[in-house]
Amino acid sequence: MPMRALNEWTATEIVAAIAAGTATCEAVARACLDRIAAREPQVGAWQYLDPDAVLAQARALDRSSARGPLRGVPFGVKDIIDTCDMPTEYGTCIHKGHRPHKDAACVALSRRAGALLLGKTVTTEFANVTPGKTCHPLDPTRTPGGSSSGSAAAVADFMAPLALGTQTTGSTTRPASFCGVFGYRPTHGDVRVAGVMEASGSLDTVGLLARSIEDIALYRDVVLGVQPEPVADMPPPRIGFCRPYFWQRLEPATQKLLAEAAQRLARAGAPVRDVTLPAEFEGLEEAHRWVSGFEMARNLAWEIDHHWDEISPAFRTGRVQDGFACTYDRYCGMRRRMEHCQRLLDALFADYDVLLAPAAAGEAPVGLHPVPHPWVYMIWTTTHVPSLTLPVFKGPAGLPVGAQLIARRGEDRKLFAAARWVYRQLVA
Amino acid sequence: MPMRALNEWTATEIVAAIAAGTATCEAVARACLDRIAAREPQVGAWQYLDPDAVLAQARALDRSSARGPLRGVPFGVKDIIDTCDMPTEYGTCIHKGHRPHKDAACVALSRRAGALLLGKTVTTEFANVTPGKTCHPLDPTRTPGGSSSGSAAAVADFMAPLALGTQTTGSTTRPASFCGVFGYRPTHGDVRVAGVMEASGSLDTVGLLARSIEDIALYRDVVLGVQPEPVADMPPPRIGFCRPYFWQRLEPATQKLLAEAAQRLARAGAPVRDVTLPAEFEGLEEAHRWVSGFEMARNLAWEIDHHWDEISPAFRTGRVQDGFACTYDRYCGMRRRMEHCQRLLDALFADYDVLLAPAAAGEAPVGLHPVPHPWVYMIWTTTHVPSLTLPVFKGPAGLPVGAQLIARRGEDRKLFAAARWVYRQLVA
Repeated sequence: MPMRALNEWTATEIVAAIAAGTATCEAVARACLDRIAAREPQVGAWQYLDPDAVLAQARALDRSSARGPLRGVPFGVKDIIDTCDMPTEYGTCIHKGHRPHKDAACVALSRRAGALLLGKTVTTEFANVTPGKTCHPLDPTRTPGGSSSGSAAAVADFMAPLALGTQTTGSTTRPASFCGVFGYRPTHGDVRVAGVMEASGSLDTVGLLARSIEDIALYRDVVLGVQPEPVADMPPPRIGFCRPYFWQRLEPATQKLLAEAAQRLARAGAPVRDVTLPAEFEGLEEAHRWVSGFEMARNLAWEIDHHWDEISPAFRTGRVQDGFACTYDRYCGMRRRMEHCQRLLDALFADYDVLLAPAAAGEAPVGLHPVPHPWVYMIWTTTHVPSLTLPVFKGPAGLPVGAQLIARRGEDRKLFAAARWVYRQLVA
Repeated sequence: MPMRALNEWTATEIVAAIAAGTATCEAVARACLDRIAAREPQVGAWQYLDPDAVLAQARALDRSSARGPLRGVPFGVKDIIDTCDMPTEYGTCIHKGHRPHKDAACVALSRRAGALLLGKTVTTEFANVTPGKTCHPLDPTRTPGGSSSGSAAAVADFMAPLALGTQTTGSTTRPASFCGVFGYRPTHGDVRVAGVMEASGSLDTVGLLARSIEDIALYRDVVLGVQPEPVADMPPPRIGFCRPYFWQRLEPATQKLLAEAAQRLARAGAPVRDVTLPAEFEGLEEAHRWVSGFEMARNLAWEIDHHWDEISPAFRTGRVQDGFACTYDRYCGMRRRMEHCQRLLDALFADYDVLLAPAAAGEAPVGLHPVPHPWVYMIWTTTHVPSLTLPVFKGPAGLPVGAQLIARRGEDRKLFAAARWVYRQLVA
C-alpha cells in the first residue's frame, strides 16, 4: 500500500487496494472530495460537483458485486462530454443547465468498468480559445492550458486520478505539459466520440489525463472497450528526435531540456537519431486552420443562428470567421494535404518506434490565455498519430514542461511500452 | 409553373415560385400536409408530425424578409437526427419522448436556408435492422427499404420534396432504389454529423433524398454550408460499368436492366468500359462487418448497460454481438483494409468519371425486412466515395429499381453533372 494520502494514489493502486479489501470506494471518493474542498477555491477545476451524490454512488459501488477493471476509481469529465446525471454546458452560457439524456460512449464505458464519476471539469468555450475559470494548480497567475483545463488541473492537483479530455489541436497535450501530468491522445478514430461535442470531426479525439503510464494504458483499454492488457516491457526503443520546423519558436530552455533528454536516452542504450520531417509538414498549420474552421463553423450552425451575441468575440473572429471564409475546394485540398502527410509519417515509422518531440513551447505562461502556441500540436493532430506527453522536465520557473512521444497510427500499445522505458531513464 | 399539384413540385420549383410570388410557403406546406393526411395511414412515414406548428412556421416564413436558397421548401428528418423543437427517438422505445436541446448541424443549416421542417421520419431501431412502421408507398406488403425508410417513402409519395437520411451500409441508397427517388450519399466526412446519432463513425454519412438531381445538388450545398452552385453541363462522361464480385447474387432482371443501360449509354456517346475491381474489394464485406460492429457496440454502451432488454434480439445478436467479439487488432486490420481499397479506388478513377453499379439486388422484397442484401452497398460505403442513386428502372413487378453512380472522393459535383447526362439518356 502506498504511503501517500488516498487522493494521491494512482488508479492502478486504487484498484488493487479495493480488490484486496484494504480500501473502500467511499474512502477513496472522500479523500478526493476533501482535496477538492480544500483546493477548489484556488484551482477552479470543476464546472459541476455534487459531493453527496458522489458519496452515495461510492457506497453503492462498495455494496455491488460487480468487479470492473476501474472499480472505485474517481474520474472527472470535461464538460463537452455528455453525462446522463449531470449538466453538460460545453463551456458556454448558451447551454447553461443543459442535461443530456444519456452518457457519452466514453463515460458509459468508464462506469461499466466501475469508475466513479466525480463531476464535470472546466473547459474553454466550445473547447476553443476563451478561457474558463481554472488556474494553474502551482501558480494561480498562470493558465493551466486548455481546452481540457479542468481535467488536467484536477489530475495534477490530486483531486482525481483520472480525467477525460479531448483534443482538436493540443487540448490534451498542452495542459498535460503545463500541469505536469501524463496526457494521451489516441490514434484518431479509435475511441468513439459519440456524445462528445464535435468541434472538428476530422481532428477530434477523446484525450486521457492521469498520473502514471499504467493508468493511461488501463484507462485507454476501458474507453476503447477492450480487455485491459498490462503495458509490455520492451528493449530500448528506436527513437527519432524530432525538431520540427518551429523548433526556433520554442523557448531556449525547452530546446535545451529536450536535447539533453535525447542525449540521455542515447547514453542509456536507445538508438536515437535526428529525424527531419518532409517539407510538406510545414503546410499542416494551414491545413489545420482551414479544416477545423470549416468544420467548427458548420457544427455550431444552431448556436450561430440563435445565440450569436452569446458567442465570445474571440471565437467569432477566429475559427468561426475562418470557417465562413473557407471554400469547399480549399477544405478538400487541405484534407488531402493531411492524408498525404499521414502516409508520409506512416512510412517514416519504418525506422523508428517512437518520435520524441516538444509537448509545449515552455512552461505555462503568465495570464489566462488557455491555448498558446497551437503550432506545437498541429503536425501530430492532423496526421492522426497517437501521442503521449510525459511530465519529465522542470522549466526555469520551476514549473512542469512535458516531452511528447509519438507512434505510428494504431501502435498505441507500443507507444506505452516505449514511453515507460523513456520515462524510467529520464525520471529515475 | 408546373401543372402538377403543389406537393408534387420539386424543391427547385418551389423556390422559384415562392421567389416569384406565385406560391406561398403556407400553400406549399398545406399541400404536403394534405397529402400526408390522406396517405399516412397506409404509408406510415412519419414518427412525429405537428401540422399546426408546421403551418405557423410556414406563415412566419411568408412574413419574413429572409431569402434563403431553400425558402419555403418542406423537408423531413430521419429520427436519428436531432431537432430542437421535436422529439428524437432513434427508432427505439428507450428514448421515447426525448427532446434534444439543439438542432443537428444539417438541420440548422437547412433552416438557415429557409427550409421548413415538416416532421421526423420513421427509421429502423438505431438505424439498424429492426423495422419501423413504414410500408412501401406503392405496395404495402413490401418494405420501403431501410434504415432511412420514412424519409424515402415520404419523398416518393409526394409528402415532402426533400428529406434527410443517413447511411452506414446502404441506408440511403437502398430505400431510394426501392421507393424510386434520388438518393445521395456524400463523400464521407464532408457533411457534418454533429447531432446525428453515431452508428459507426468510420462509415456514417448524412444522406439526402429528393425527386430531382438539381434538388439533390442544391440541398447538398445547403447542408455542406457553401454557396449553392448549379449542376454543370458536361460532355458524355467516361463510365466504368462495374459488375462487382456479387453480381451473380443480383436478381437476373436487375442484371439485365443494368447491362442494357450500359449499352444505351454507350450508344448515346459515352465511353463505357467494363471495370473490374481489384480482388481486395471482396474483403470489404468482412471489413464492414467488423468495423461497424466494433463501433456500434461501443457507441451504444449506455443503452446496453441500462436498457439491454429493450434492445431488439435481432440487433443484440447481430452487430452488437459482432462488436463484442471483435478484437482491437482485428478492428485495426479491417480499417487498414478499408484505407487500402480507398487508395486503389482513387487511382482507378484516373480512367473514369463515374462508375455505374447496382443500387439494389432487385425490387423491394415482400415482407418487412428493412435492410436486405447489405453486400450491395459495402464496397462503396467502406471506400468513402460519393454515390447517387437514380430512379431509372422498373422491375418485373412494376416497382422501381435504381442505378447507382459513384465518383471519386471529393468529386461530388462531377457526380451530379455526369448523373444528369446519364439520367437524360435513360429516362428521356
